[in-house]
Amino acid sequence: MKHYTSINDIENINSWIDEAKEIKANPLANKELGKNKTLGLLFFNSSLRTRLSTQKAALNLGMDPIVMNVSGDAWGIEFGDGTVMNGNTAEHIKEAAAVVSQYCDIIAVRAFPSLTDKEKDESEQILNSFVEFASVPIISMESATGHPLQGLTDAITISENATKKKPKVVLSWAPHVKTLPHAVANSFTQAMQKMDVEFVIANPEGYNLSKEISKDTPIYHNQEEAFKDADFVYTKNWSSYETYGQLLEVNENWTITKDKIGDAKFMHCLPVRRNVVVEDAVLDSDSSLVIKQANNRTYAAQLVLKKILENN
Amino acid sequence: MKHYTSINDIENINSWIDEAKEIKANPLANKELGKNKTLGLLFFNSSLRTRLSTQKAALNLGMDPIVMNVSGDAWGIEFGDGTVMNGNTAEHIKEAAAVVSQYCDIIAVRAFPSLTDKEKDESEQILNSFVEFASVPIISMESATGHPLQGLTDAITISENATKKKPKVVLSWAPHVKTLPHAVANSFTQAMQKMDVEFVIANPEGYNLSKEISKDTPIYHNQEEAFKDADFVYTKNWSSYETYGQLLEVNENWTITKDKIGDAKFMHCLPVRRNVVVEDAVLDSDSSLVIKQANNRTYAAQLVLKKILENN
Amino acid sequence: MKHYTSINDIENINSWIDEAKEIKANPLANKELGKNKTLGLLFFNSSLRTRLSTQKAALNLGMDPIVMNVSGDAWGIEFGDGTVMNGNTAEHIKEAAAVVSQYCDIIAVRAFPSLTDKEKDESEQILNSFVEFASVPIISMESATGHPLQGLTDAITISENATKKKPKVVLSWAPHVKTLPHAVANSFTQAMQKMDVEFVIANPEGYNLSKEISKDTPIYHNQEEAFKDADFVYTKNWSSYETYGQLLEVNENWTITKDKIGDAKFMHCLPVRRNVVVEDAVLDSDSSLVIKQANNRTYAAQLVLKKILENN
Repeated sequence: MKHYTSINDIENINSWIDEAKEIKANPLANKELGKNKTLGLLFFNSSLRTRLSTQKAALNLGMDPIVMNVSGDAWGIEFGDGTVMNGNTAEHIKEAAAVVSQYCDIIAVRAFPSLTDKEKDESEQILNSFVEFASVPIISMESATGHPLQGLTDAITISENATKKKPKVVLSWAPHVKTLPHAVANSFTQAMQKMDVEFVIANPEGYNLSKEISKDTPIYHNQEEAFKDADFVYTKNWSSYETYGQLLEVNENWTITKDKIGDAKFMHCLPVRRNVVVEDAVLDSDSSLVIKQANNRTYAAQLVLKKILENN
Repeated sequence: MKHYTSINDIENINSWIDEAKEIKANPLANKELGKNKTLGLLFFNSSLRTRLSTQKAALNLGMDPIVMNVSGDAWGIEFGDGTVMNGNTAEHIKEAAAVVSQYCDIIAVRAFPSLTDKEKDESEQILNSFVEFASVPIISMESATGHPLQGLTDAITISENATKKKPKVVLSWAPHVKTLPHAVANSFTQAMQKMDVEFVIANPEGYNLSKEISKDTPIYHNQEEAFKDADFVYTKNWSSYETYGQLLEVNENWTITKDKIGDAKFMHCLPVRRNVVVEDAVLDSDSSLVIKQANNRTYAAQLVLKKILENN
Repeated sequence: MKHYTSINDIENINSWIDEAKEIKANPLANKELGKNKTLGLLFFNSSLRTRLSTQKAALNLGMDPIVMNVSGDAWGIEFGDGTVMNGNTAEHIKEAAAVVSQYCDIIAVRAFPSLTDKEKDESEQILNSFVEFASVPIISMESATGHPLQGLTDAITISENATKKKPKVVLSWAPHVKTLPHAVANSFTQAMQKMDVEFVIANPEGYNLSKEISKDTPIYHNQEEAFKDADFVYTKNWSSYETYGQLLEVNENWTITKDKIGDAKFMHCLPVRRNVVVEDAVLDSDSSLVIKQANNRTYAAQLVLKKILENN
């Protein structure tokens, strides 16, 4: 593996999960591996968990993290090919990526979608430009269509908390006041498709994920039906994919409640809007795995960094 | 001591001062103590001294500091209990504090008051929420009502520069163009009340600090009278506490001048507005301790970090 | 050498270049030199290369870099002498520089010019205030009138890529949509004047650099003539110096093309606006040294830091 930009970069998710658990049991075991190596963390968008956990992961491996908020700290970056740069962008990604590659041994990038231009978002212009023009490995810290560090985290968390061989996992859409990306839902779906779980998706009509992501995963438009015998309910809002980036009217109440999920474990990538996405009673109960999930972000990132460092 | 959020967390200020002086004499003596431990510095507000000196203190102890400007870098944080989060805040402090606790071994927080809602400011919602919901020690880097790293710094500085057993220390209000918090004045008052000094406060009428802070410390409304035989004049502006957060009309000139303070040492926490709070002639003279004070910020922070690390 | 604020601080550019090449060949050889020392990087303006390469250089020397965006992270800084600070600035440079000196063993500062007030810009108020009021060495990371880390980088790059004893080097103005500083052009000119090269400048009428910088370096207003037999074409836009900070009308097309430069190597400090300053065909060809140049930023900064550390 050179880059880690998608759940598809995981060859064998079970062996990855096992290795992540070993790292978690002994996080400083590879403190020499990253010595004298820098990890550049480039943020085009806000971040709390990813920002901190990826730095922590790098430190656990002895790396030096260097953080940059691209928009605030540096120059507007141009991605177009052949552009006459007489507008607002001052530096082309061709230079930026090649240059940063000389200061950082690995580059991690966060770049959200526009949610207004489906084709452009799906082209993953920012992430793929780094892959193309950088000379060092690239890690996605969430791109337009995927959040593979989160998906790996979630796979680890489900493996740790499963009480049966083949648990039932439901990915449920939930309401939100803003238009949100599909990245987390996409990567979670891809991770579950690789695991030995019974996986279904629940979302209102009009909110189906891209067919290229959901493939033959069963989709329910009736939340109650989907939740039957669920062991894990993973919740996330996303805007419509079909009517791209829009909030559609939804008549039923999709907010997650204690009543609805019963004994199932509740998962969410955070940040989560309380009493909009899920009621307090769920988040504040023992059923909620959200804090444990966030903890695993460190070990997912550390596993990815370790694999890249070992490979280079 | 688990947390350090107030001068009241200091059991014995004299032994603390002695230990701070030892650290200052040999700042790298405990370089192994913080190895493989991270200090998260979360800023809800601007900072120069605190930002740099606390990082320096952490580095002196071998810790890895991780800095985050909460507002710019991450999500709007909700503090209300039971809130339906359909507004501008995207993440609840319950999750944020618990999550950050998993990436940082100690969390330091700066969060200024609104100065518009006394009750809310005094509830110390942000700081106390971190204490409540984080699972690791919390350090205040200035909260709504206190700045205990500054107060400790000031105690060290007075101890270092005193030329008599029981010096006279005056805390004097001074003019300013903006409405400022009471935090520095409060913590300084609390620190002086614990030390063997003759301590008085000078401020215009209407500018008395909270009675819960000043207790039976003498308050003068006549600056000249208060300054009589003073060894140290600690100056700071604060907005009215009684008429909460307001600038009141003051007829006398409270700006600190060389004439007024005579041979007394001048102290201020910085930043200071020259020729508004204090005239150049004072700041540029040998009487001014402000730079030495700022230097002690490192050792105050290092002492607090050391005590917390030793205790955990 | 105490400070590094200008190309004039280089006593012998050839021996500096040799030492930089040694550092580049073995960048971790002096990893102990900067141990337990902090480098404060203070940015009044945006930065990508300087921000990352200077941190990398510090890490290679075992230093701990501490980065601060002055405007966003801290307080508005006052530079005027005797000012009554009742406006927008909250902290005077006298305090700020003295205070930061106590937390950082070396301070690096970036502060761009106004381009509206020639006299003020040439006074280098910000940089020189740090030199005056700080008690530790100061490094310019680009000031109003110079960018000496870039100039040193460029000298190293020309030395590495020269194929004859005394190559011909042309500094060529190129078009831009914004008014840009003279700093890079100035420092490049000063560096070339110290090297054993045939150095000429090409710019439109009205765009001559300060006579104090160009001295007796030949200036051509005809780009084609200047480029004759050139081995290196260093390109950079700058606003008019005579009609200070203005964009003047230029009738000829000064954009750099493959046709114009022939076999000469192309250099630019980056960021560069493609197809405004230079056409894609040049940047994407083997003639372009821009990425190699950027790589040398690390070793130029590391050389300067090493010399300062050895001297203190």
